Amino acid sequence: MTPEAFRRHGHEIVDWIADYWQGIESRDVVPGVEPGELRRALPTRAPEAAEPFEAILEDVERLIVPGMAHWGHPGWFAYFPSNASPPSVLGEMLAAGLGAQCMSWVTSPAATELEQVVMAWLREALAIPEGFTGSIQDTASSATLVAFLTARDRLGPDAARMTAYWSREAHSSVAKAARLAGIPPERCRVVEVDQAWALRPDHLAALLAQDRAAGLVPGIIVASMGTTSSTACDPIRAVGELARGARAWYHVDAAYGGTAAILPEIRPLLDGLELADSYVTNPHKWLMTSFDCTAYFVRDVEALLSTCRTSPEYLRTAHDPEVVNYRDWGIPLGRRFRALKLWFVLRSYGLAGLRELFRGHLALAQELAGWVDGTQGWERLAPVPLGLVCFRHVPPTLAGDEQALARHNAGLLARVNASGRVFLTHTTLGERYTIRMSIGQFRTERRHVESAWELLREAATER
Amino acid sequence: MTPEAFRRHGHEIVDWIADYWQGIESRDVVPGVEPGELRRALPTRAPEAAEPFEAILEDVERLIVPGMAHWGHPGWFAYFPSNASPPSVLGEMLAAGLGAQCMSWVTSPAATELEQVVMAWLREALAIPEGFTGSIQDTASSATLVAFLTARDRLGPDAARMTAYWSREAHSSVAKAARLAGIPPERCRVVEVDQAWALRPDHLAALLAQDRAAGLVPGIIVASMGTTSSTACDPIRAVGELARGARAWYHVDAAYGGTAAILPEIRPLLDGLELADSYVTNPHKWLMTSFDCTAYFVRDVEALLSTCRTSPEYLRTAHDPEVVNYRDWGIPLGRRFRALKLWFVLRSYGLAGLRELFRGHLALAQELAGWVDGTQGWERLAPVPLGLVCFRHVPPTLAGDEQALARHNAGLLARVNASGRVFLTHTTLGERYTIRMSIGQFRTERRHVESAWELLREAATER
Repeated sequence: MTPEAFRRHGHEIVDWIADYWQGIESRDVVPGVEPGELRRALPTRAPEAAEPFEAILEDVERLIVPGMAHWGHPGWFAYFPSNASPPSVLGEMLAAGLGAQCMSWVTSPAATELEQVVMAWLREALAIPEGFTGSIQDTASSATLVAFLTARDRLGPDAARMTAYWSREAHSSVAKAARLAGIPPERCRVVEVDQAWALRPDHLAALLAQDRAAGLVPGIIVASMGTTSSTACDPIRAVGELARGARAWYHVDAAYGGTAAILPEIRPLLDGLELADSYVTNPHKWLMTSFDCTAYFVRDVEALLSTCRTSPEYLRTAHDPEVVNYRDWGIPLGRRFRALKLWFVLRSYGLAGLRELFRGHLALAQELAGWVDGTQGWERLAPVPLGLVCFRHVPPTLAGDEQALARHNAGLLARVNASGRVFLTHTTLGERYTIRMSIGQFRTERRHVESAWELLREAATER
Repeated sequence: MTPEAFRRHGHEIVDWIADYWQGIESRDVVPGVEPGELRRALPTRAPEAAEPFEAILEDVERLIVPGMAHWGHPGWFAYFPSNASPPSVLGEMLAAGLGAQCMSWVTSPAATELEQVVMAWLREALAIPEGFTGSIQDTASSATLVAFLTARDRLGPDAARMTAYWSREAHSSVAKAARLAGIPPERCRVVEVDQAWALRPDHLAALLAQDRAAGLVPGIIVASMGTTSSTACDPIRAVGELARGARAWYHVDAAYGGTAAILPEIRPLLDGLELADSYVTNPHKWLMTSFDCTAYFVRDVEALLSTCRTSPEYLRTAHDPEVVNYRDWGIPLGRRFRALKLWFVLRSYGLAGLRELFRGHLALAQELAGWVDGTQGWERLAPVPLGLVCFRHVPPTLAGDEQALARHNAGLLARVNASGRVFLTHTTLGERYTIRMSIGQFRTERRHVESAWELLREAATER
C-alpha cells in the first residue's frame, strides 16, 4: 500500500470513527451474537492474493462491528470504564504512524524522555508522594506481578519462606501474581474485610504475628484503593504501618481508583501512600487514555531493575550509563510509544478539564446511590466512595432467601442488558448477588443514568 | 474534543503520517540528540487549562519527531525490523477508535473470534504443525515467560528440582524468563554452540544426563530458530528428541525467524517443530504488523490455562463454558484488539505478496553476504540463513589483535551511523566484535543496501 493509498484509506477510517462515535448511542451496547457466528462467517485460510482495502473495510462494517461490545457507549455501566477519548485515539494513531519501538533510550530518545516527563506530571497531578518514580506498563496485572517478583527477589534465599497478604476483596490479578511468582497457596494469606469490604488491619496484624512466630518471612502486603467488586478502600496508612513493621514490600493497587486522586477531595482515601514501595493506577480506565496505559510507580528503582534488567551485548549502547532504558523496568523487551497518548490527554483536557469530568461522574454515582437508598424494595450493598454503585432488588416475597434473590437479580440484570440500551455486570459481596453500576464512561450524562435506573425498576417488576 | 474536532485533527494526523512516510528517506535514521534534551525542553507540570490541539501537534513536529529514531527508514539495518506497514497502521487506528477491551469473549465477541481465525490462518501460512493453538501476546519476552511458568507449574512439587536449558546464543529474554519464573542460576544450563552458533545437541545430551544422575528434573529446553546475534538456527528436531526423552517442556523461540516460514524454502529450518510444546514468533518484526503482535502457539491449551486462568465472580459470564476467554491465555487481564491489524495485513498483502517481500529481503542479504565474502579485508562471521549479515573489517595491520579489531570496528560503526543515512548495531560472536546488518525494513531496496555497503567501505579507510 502506497503512502497515497494510506492517505485515502486513513481519511476513510477517521471519518468512519467520527461517524461511529456520533451514532454510538443508537447501537445496542452489547451485540446479540452467539458464540461462533463470526468464526463461521470467515474463510478458514488467509487469502493467497492481495485484496482491495475497500473489501476489508466492508467486512469490518458487515461482520466485525455487529459483533463488538461498545465500551464507548454512554450506556456502558459494566466492569470499569475504558475511556478511548478522542485526543487519546489521535495519540494512538500518531504513535502507530511513527512506528517506534521504545525498548531503549537510543531506539527512541524522545519517547523515553516523554515517558519520564508525563510520569512526573502524573505523579504530581495525582498527589503521589515525592520519591516515587513512574513508568508505563501494559496492565495493572503485569505491574502487580512485577511488584511480587521484586518483593520475592529482594528476599534472596528467604524467598522460600516468603508469605503474601491481600484482602478477600483484592483483585484476581493479585492472587494470580502470587501464583505466577511461585508463592504456593500455603504461604498466601487472605485477610478478612470489614462491613465496608475493606481490609481489616487487626486480622492482618494477627496473621503477620502468627507467620513470624512460625518462622515464615512476610514478603509482600497488598492494599487496594477501590476494589473491583465494590470500590472498597483499604486503610492505606494502617496497612502500611504493619508492612513497615514486618519489613514486607508494600504494594498499593489503585488500578481503578487512583486516577480519581486528581481531585483533592479524593486524596484522603490514599492517606499513607508514602509508606508504599510500589503503586499502580490505570490512566486507561477513567483518565481518558485508551487501553493500554498503566502507570507503575516505585520507590526503589534499583530493586525493580535488579529483577527486570538484562544487558546482552546486542542491546548495549554508549549512552547506557546516563539514560533510562525502559526495557529494564518490566517484563517485555519491546515497548510501544504509550507516553504520547497520555501527553495528548493531559494537554488536551488540562487538569481542570479532567477534574470536571471526574466530579461529574462522582456526582452521578452519588445521585444514583440516593435513588437506590430512597426507593422501596432496593438495597444498596456497599458505600460509594468513587464511581460505582452496588445494589440489588429485594422483593418482599423473597426477602431472606439468598438463592432466590440471586436468581431474581440475575434475571433482572439479563433483561436490562437485553434491552441493548445499557450494559451492567454483577459480582457477589459476601454471599449476596450484587448488581454493579459503574459510572465513568465519558459520554455518560445524567439522562443515561436516569434511564438506566428506570430500566432497572421496570425490569424488577417483570418476571 | 467533539467528534467533529476529532475528524478534523484525525485528517491532519493521517496527512502528517503519509507526508512523514513519503519524506522519511530525507531524515537522519537516528537523531543527533543528547540525553536530557527533550526533558529540558518540556514543562515540569501538566497544564492546568486545556490546550488547543494545534499547539500539541506543533510540539510533536518541533520537539518529538526530531528526537525519534526512524524504524521505518529504508536505511534501518539495526536490531531486527519493526515493520509498521500502512495496512497495519490502519488496523491500529480502527482498533483505537473502536476502543475495545478484549479480555473476555463477552467484552468483545468479534475480537475474540477474529483472533481465533487469524491465529488459524497464521498457523497454516507458517506451516506450524496441526495440534497447535495460537493466541496473541504483547512480546516474545512475555510468551517465553509464560512458557517457563507453564513448564514449572506442570511439575508440581518437582519444580523445586527443575533445571532449564538454552544455548549460549539464546535471546536475553530466555534467561530473564528463567529468573522471573524463580529458577535459580544453579539450575540453569547454558549449552555450547557449534561453529554456526547453533546449539550442540551432544552437549545438551551430556548436561541432561548429568542432571538426571544428580536427581534433578529437566523442566524446560529452549531452542532458537534465528538467534538475535547471528540468526543461528538450532537443530529443532534433534533438540526436540532430547526434550521428549527427558520429558521436558520444549519451547521454540522463533521470534524473528519464524514468520519467514511463510516461504516453503525456509521450512526445513523448522523441521521437527511438531515435537515442541510451545512456539513463539513475532508478526511485529518482519511480517508487516506494527508492534505489538506476538503469536504464541501451544500444544496443550489446558496446561497454559491452568497456569494463567482466574475466575472471580465479577468476570464470570453465562457464555464461559462455550467460549474462549483470552484473559486466561497470558499474564495481563486487559487486552487490546490486536487481531484486527494482523487481519488487515494478511488480507491487504495476501500470502503471495508477503512471500515476495520476504524473498526480496533474503536475496538482498545473500547479495550483501557475497559482497562481504568477495571483498578483501572483510570477514563474514556467521552463516546467513535469514535476513541478517554478520561481519567485520580486518585491516592487515590489526589481524589477530581482537581488542584492536573491536575498537576499529566500533569506530567504523559509529562513523557510519553518524552519517544519518543508515543505522546498524553490533554484537559479539565468540570474542569477536561483530557488525550486524539486518535487512527486513519493507522500504529497503537494493540501492539502500548498496549505499550502506559503500558507506561501510569508505568508513573502513578513515581512522
